Amino acid sequence: MNSFGEVFRVSIFGESHGNSIGAVIDGCPPGIPVTADDFVHDLSRRRSGRTGTTKRHEPDKPEILSGIFNDHTTGSPITVITRNSDKISSDYDDFRNIPRPGHADFTAGIKYSGFSDMRGSGHFSGRITWGLVAAGVIAKKILQPAEISARLISAGGNPDIESAIEKAVLENDSIGGIIECKVTNPRKAIGEPFFYSVESAISHIVFSIPAIKGVEFGSGFSAASMKGSVHNDPIIDGTGRTLTNNAGGINGGITNGNEILFRVAVKPTSSTGAEQRTYDFSTGQLTALKVKGRHDTCIALRIPVIVEAAAAIALADLLLLDRGIHGSRSL
Amino acid sequence: MNSFGEVFRVSIFGESHGNSIGAVIDGCPPGIPVTADDFVHDLSRRRSGRTGTTKRHEPDKPEILSGIFNDHTTGSPITVITRNSDKISSDYDDFRNIPRPGHADFTAGIKYSGFSDMRGSGHFSGRITWGLVAAGVIAKKILQPAEISARLISAGGNPDIESAIEKAVLENDSIGGIIECKVTNPRKAIGEPFFYSVESAISHIVFSIPAIKGVEFGSGFSAASMKGSVHNDPIIDGTGRTLTNNAGGINGGITNGNEILFRVAVKPTSSTGAEQRTYDFSTGQLTALKVKGRHDTCIALRIPVIVEAAAAIALADLLLLDRGIHGSRSL
Amino acid sequence: MNSFGEVFRVSIFGESHGNSIGAVIDGCPPGIPVTADDFVHDLSRRRSGRTGTTKRHEPDKPEILSGIFNDHTTGSPITVITRNSDKISSDYDDFRNIPRPGHADFTAGIKYSGFSDMRGSGHFSGRITWGLVAAGVIAKKILQPAEISARLISAGGNPDIESAIEKAVLENDSIGGIIECKVTNPRKAIGEPFFYSVESAISHIVFSIPAIKGVEFGSGFSAASMKGSVHNDPIIDGTGRTLTNNAGGINGGITNGNEILFRVAVKPTSSTGAEQRTYDFSTGQLTALKVKGRHDTCIALRIPVIVEAAAAIALADLLLLDRGIHGSRSL
Amino acid sequence: MNSFGEVFRVSIFGESHGNSIGAVIDGCPPGIPVTADDFVHDLSRRRSGRTGTTKRHEPDKPEILSGIFNDHTTGSPITVITRNSDKISSDYDDFRNIPRPGHADFTAGIKYSGFSDMRGSGHFSGRITWGLVAAGVIAKKILQPAEISARLISAGGNPDIESAIEKAVLENDSIGGIIECKVTNPRKAIGEPFFYSVESAISHIVFSIPAIKGVEFGSGFSAASMKGSVHNDPIIDGTGRTLTNNAGGINGGITNGNEILFRVAVKPTSSTGAEQRTYDFSTGQLTALKVKGRHDTCIALRIPVIVEAAAAIALADLLLLDRGIHGSRSL
Repeated sequence: MNSFGEVFRVSIFGESHGNSIGAVIDGCPPGIPVTADDFVHDLSRRRSGRTGTTKRHEPDKPEILSGIFNDHTTGSPITVITRNSDKISSDYDDFRNIPRPGHADFTAGIKYSGFSDMRGSGHFSGRITWGLVAAGVIAKKILQPAEISARLISAGGNPDIESAIEKAVLENDSIGGIIECKVTNPRKAIGEPFFYSVESAISHIVFSIPAIKGVEFGSGFSAASMKGSVHNDPIIDGTGRTLTNNAGGINGGITNGNEILFRVAVKPTSSTGAEQRTYDFSTGQLTALKVKGRHDTCIALRIPVIVEAAAAIALADLLLLDRGIHGSRSL
Repeated sequence: MNSFGEVFRVSIFGESHGNSIGAVIDGCPPGIPVTADDFVHDLSRRRSGRTGTTKRHEPDKPEILSGIFNDHTTGSPITVITRNSDKISSDYDDFRNIPRPGHADFTAGIKYSGFSDMRGSGHFSGRITWGLVAAGVIAKKILQPAEISARLISAGGNPDIESAIEKAVLENDSIGGIIECKVTNPRKAIGEPFFYSVESAISHIVFSIPAIKGVEFGSGFSAASMKGSVHNDPIIDGTGRTLTNNAGGINGGITNGNEILFRVAVKPTSSTGAEQRTYDFSTGQLTALKVKGRHDTCIALRIPVIVEAAAAIALADLLLLDRGIHGSRSL
Repeated sequence: MNSFGEVFRVSIFGESHGNSIGAVIDGCPPGIPVTADDFVHDLSRRRSGRTGTTKRHEPDKPEILSGIFNDHTTGSPITVITRNSDKISSDYDDFRNIPRPGHADFTAGIKYSGFSDMRGSGHFSGRITWGLVAAGVIAKKILQPAEISARLISAGGNPDIESAIEKAVLENDSIGGIIECKVTNPRKAIGEPFFYSVESAISHIVFSIPAIKGVEFGSGFSAASMKGSVHNDPIIDGTGRTLTNNAGGINGGITNGNEILFRVAVKPTSSTGAEQRTYDFSTGQLTALKVKGRHDTCIALRIPVIVEAAAAIALADLLLLDRGIHGSRSL
Repeated sequence: MNSFGEVFRVSIFGESHGNSIGAVIDGCPPGIPVTADDFVHDLSRRRSGRTGTTKRHEPDKPEILSGIFNDHTTGSPITVITRNSDKISSDYDDFRNIPRPGHADFTAGIKYSGFSDMRGSGHFSGRITWGLVAAGVIAKKILQPAEISARLISAGGNPDIESAIEKAVLENDSIGGIIECKVTNPRKAIGEPFFYSVESAISHIVFSIPAIKGVEFGSGFSAASMKGSVHNDPIIDGTGRTLTNNAGGINGGITNGNEILFRVAVKPTSSTGAEQRTYDFSTGQLTALKVKGRHDTCIALRIPVIVEAAAAIALADLLLLDRGIHGSRSL
């Protein structure tokens, strides 16, 4: 449930306004150089601060509880946490009775019979992805020399991202976006048929990130309109390089050595300053709701590094699994 | 790898031209009425025979090896197989040296060091989904009264599906399609945060199906162009019913009781009669290839029932997992 | 539930008097030479026929359904089954109402709400270990050059095994026994702390075998009476060889390269010709029961090869897991 | 590896002299009353302080990082840690080159290629069981009204435990012991055939505890000397109560409602004040070693509460798994 992976296993925990959030990373090879500083770059990319992101500012300083010694992984579980500090829980008082549309308020209330800690959206908060990004830092090291990079390629349907966000801020509304992720120089032969294909593994973990509505690989949804003679990627040399990359670097669920390419759709932040209609379960009446609190205008701005981390974790797990079954190999 | 699920666990096995293909279903509650006849309807929907599907005709008769007694599930693992009969393996002789573009020939060759049985594409064949459909028959019974139905909503980019297929047959090419799947009357509160959200579970298993390039829930990729004030689904009564369904029936990874809705993109069948460019690894030269053998013009025609099965398996597993943690409940 | 292993995964299925019993072996490296003949030796060691074993004689001929091609493993799931043939189900008619003491009749009845197929003890029969032995044949190949051998070292508390069994046959009673299993030439550094120690993995799978009451490693229960200065095994050379082997070849859950040594206690077969007291749930009265049917006087006679298989499966899984995390290495 | 359980999942982390040790408990039902005080009783039973236990005194105060809100479990992962404080790492300087006999020094060195943090035996220390005991506190609440109690029934082979320990302290040596664990009032029908029998689950987790050499259920090793007519437990009433309990409360891997009974053998603490022979890998010479540092004379004194926790975790997982498959039921 809150863990992912067969060999390289990541567990995350924490609530938005609880004591701490964090991750446990098990099945990590020993001897990988890691210091607390290594987490800073990716964690800061995930942080707020830019136009279009929330005014909640968390220092997000990582504290290593276990698994790293003499600046190297030891092979025992790595635990990294950060304390929550900038909390204004009163903003969330009414959402049990008057659930915010588009949020988990209603579903969490039912599922956990009223016991979940929904301050700041609790375990459903995007804040929980902090642990994912921390684990991703380790996973990326395992995948080297492969490199993963994701970026926002459109916001609100518009490739001019900055102006789209500025407009949304002015309108006191929120917008979505599309993120593209590339893995260059991936090892070949990663991915396990049938149920643990590269697409299965990546989509599984990417859809765990709050606000994701779609995932597509290579040609993606446009493949549905293409002919086979056009869609097939001709192999052009003995390394398996292809002329086109409609496959997104994956055939039969297994990496073919070309760039891995996928895109994810991010919905507009559910919390907007605009007035929303919803239902008041305490009165049994329809009602209007203006969500207070501090929220992101375009959460998609902060998600590229999370998508990178998710992909890195999935691929690192598949890499170690391939190595377990087939032995070390350079492909 | 070849199994899926935490409580309700499905394992599949077999190769396209091997002895048999099948599935083992573990963690299934006892006392569910099941006979061999119950598999017939869905398995026949998966079979070929219509225009646009392969000329390989398999009887696909299910044989129950274990787990069903007196026409009921017993609680021990259910094993269902079918024998392969209509095999023409000679069609597949050359693909080790001259891999078909868009297929797993190249990646499987590398991954399994030449040991995989690639006759009829072996374990990578769409034929392996037979076991998935068989397991889906049981899963659908567990989910009742929820009903799952998937259908092809476009082929080759065209909603007029029959004519699109006829045109492709004439052109000796293949086309893709888009499948929409709906789950009506789903139980609320299914889905486990963080890593086992409904979207994670469904996308994981759906992306295991060969030829799938994208999965989107509710508003899907169009969410990226929407504003939050428009995207959020207003709750309109005490049962949690919403006015719109951009969420696809899922908030925070958990079913909200509205219809679960997702779409999948299917690529055009990689095997087409059209001449393809590829690489001959035995000569080290570029070459041209015309794929012989019997193939589907539009594999998407046969995939709706497989998507239903995949969704049913994922949801049945989540339902039993919810029941394990929270006890029986009617929501 | 009915599967074991993290990387090398074995699933078993079948009932004693059902259609077939078998195993699916997933996560097996490709390229291992395997033919149907390879299963014969171990499966015949498991079969009945000797004095002290049941009169039910099954041919137990293995049929390979998938995963082996050109006499080698392919890397996709291996499925092996055998048909049940010599069945006399009428022997088992009354045990729902009048459960045999020492059997699973009562617990299975409750657990599966009366739906389990208890003919021949169904899924609880020792017959189900056929699949374990078949999977063990593959696992042993993975572990080479390590060799596993188990043997019965006492029966009915007596090292003179043959005479103990003859006496029990005469008395129309059953007896237990102790089996010792040794793994010579094991690779070092196998075993995962914390929860997947060698002892954890082996005991987990060994206790799945019906009739096992105890498992001990190295000095075992006698360690409780020893002093540390005596129990500790002095290391005597640079390979890690120890003077004594109270550790049973395992320190901190990890193999140290010395012989792995463990013993298991097997209870006397629950089915004996002697009259038993039990309870008749249909009348609500205490009653006497003489178990008919064909049973083993000393089931421990047939268990050594099953224990070998269980240990081989556990160690093969740990070996592949170690290789996944640490890469190929010769230790 | 460092996690256990299918539905109720416990992960542990930490090293003896690292920052913190702890546990993450996932799959825990919401609404269970828990405060930090609830951990005190069992954690104090695990602590040192009595004659025969180490002079290292840790406050062991639990800090709850997540998953508990308003003094109840929330349904999201519970994380509990404690800081390490009383560390004298210099005691452990030489053990890489001169491994202590009976310890994990040699095996950990090989397995983790020298990267493991072996200060205070690191992740191999008995100190890591702190997290197990913390998780056990939650598991015991899930199992109510069943009660679990374990106690030391002999030390150094002697039922007069206090005098055996005093003698060992005087001799500057260490001794082992036998612990008996009983679960009274267990729910019936817990346990999953084939591979997740009650014995499999309990032995798996109990053998994870450092120093355990054997586990036996009910009659255990003595069963090997018994006749079936004696060993079988006659059922004496309609609740399934049996006259004797050689089965240890388990038939066919499933609880029968009688007391669950098992015993574990604990070896003498490997660290003794007595001079030991071992090998110096830096010089390639045999050498003598006197282990300094602070150690338990009889570690078995501190293990009963750990065995209780282990059994509680295994049974809680099986209980939730049974509930998932079969629904809530009172048996």
